[in-house]
Amino acid sequence: MPVIVDNSVDILVVEDNDSERASIVESLRAAVDGVSVAAVANQKEALDFLFRRGDWMHRTETDPPSLILLDLGLPDSDGLSILGEIRSLDPDDALTLTPVVIFTDSHATTDISRSYRCGANSYVIKPLSFADFQAVVEAVGRYWVKHNRVHA
Amino acid sequence: MPVIVDNSVDILVVEDNDSERASIVESLRAAVDGVSVAAVANQKEALDFLFRRGDWMHRTETDPPSLILLDLGLPDSDGLSILGEIRSLDPDDALTLTPVVIFTDSHATTDISRSYRCGANSYVIKPLSFADFQAVVEAVGRYWVKHNRVHA
Repeated sequence: MPVIVDNSVDILVVEDNDSERASIVESLRAAVDGVSVAAVANQKEALDFLFRRGDWMHRTETDPPSLILLDLGLPDSDGLSILGEIRSLDPDDALTLTPVVIFTDSHATTDISRSYRCGANSYVIKPLSFADFQAVVEAVGRYWVKHNRVHA
Repeated sequence: MPVIVDNSVDILVVEDNDSERASIVESLRAAVDGVSVAAVANQKEALDFLFRRGDWMHRTETDPPSLILLDLGLPDSDGLSILGEIRSLDPDDALTLTPVVIFTDSHATTDISRSYRCGANSYVIKPLSFADFQAVVEAVGRYWVKHNRVHA
């Protein structure tokens, strides 16, 4: 089942590992006062969320999220096909400019360069220790929600 | 005169306002231990730096910077033409993937969307107060040098 933490969404988390997903959501909420986070586990749920289908058919807020935090290794996608769909939308669709940060275990040069070429804004490697993992997620959330601007 | 703070460069700052440029360099060095920063005041100097011409003809380090912090309103360019040159390089040129953060006074929707469409990774508005200005520059430096990955 998808987890909706709030109705109006600042950050969409796409992560198939249950405990990592829970930890990411918790760290984001700890880092940014009043932030709202939705979390999904695979490509189908991510696209349902973004395009208001399935469980999110009745989602009403109009602004796209300020950030999509995207894992590369999903059960039904490598993650970049979600990014590809977003970046190939009509230029007038605000969703197409939504910042996407890749958050992954992979240190591979090919994954890093493929991600940027596909339109990722940033590429962050998951730290191995739990404390570092939390600290990095908090830094990511603070930067993209508090400092970065995507809507005027 | 261009200011070279170090030989090997992690961050290139492109900012025409002398006092803002000095403050940005100082804040970046305070935020990230051992970071090396180069700063230039206009498009000509920025392109000379990136393409090793003019004053930077003998620059020897091979990796592109981890971050280019780019003002929109330069005396000889609106900033985005520098970004355009970088993003239109040969895909095999590592410089073409270098993260570019727009750092500007402009709140205009058109500037925000033009910047992302041109390939900016992030858009950050300069705070009005000096303390906030420093804090935001520090957050930008920490995020892109410590957390973001662009080279494997």
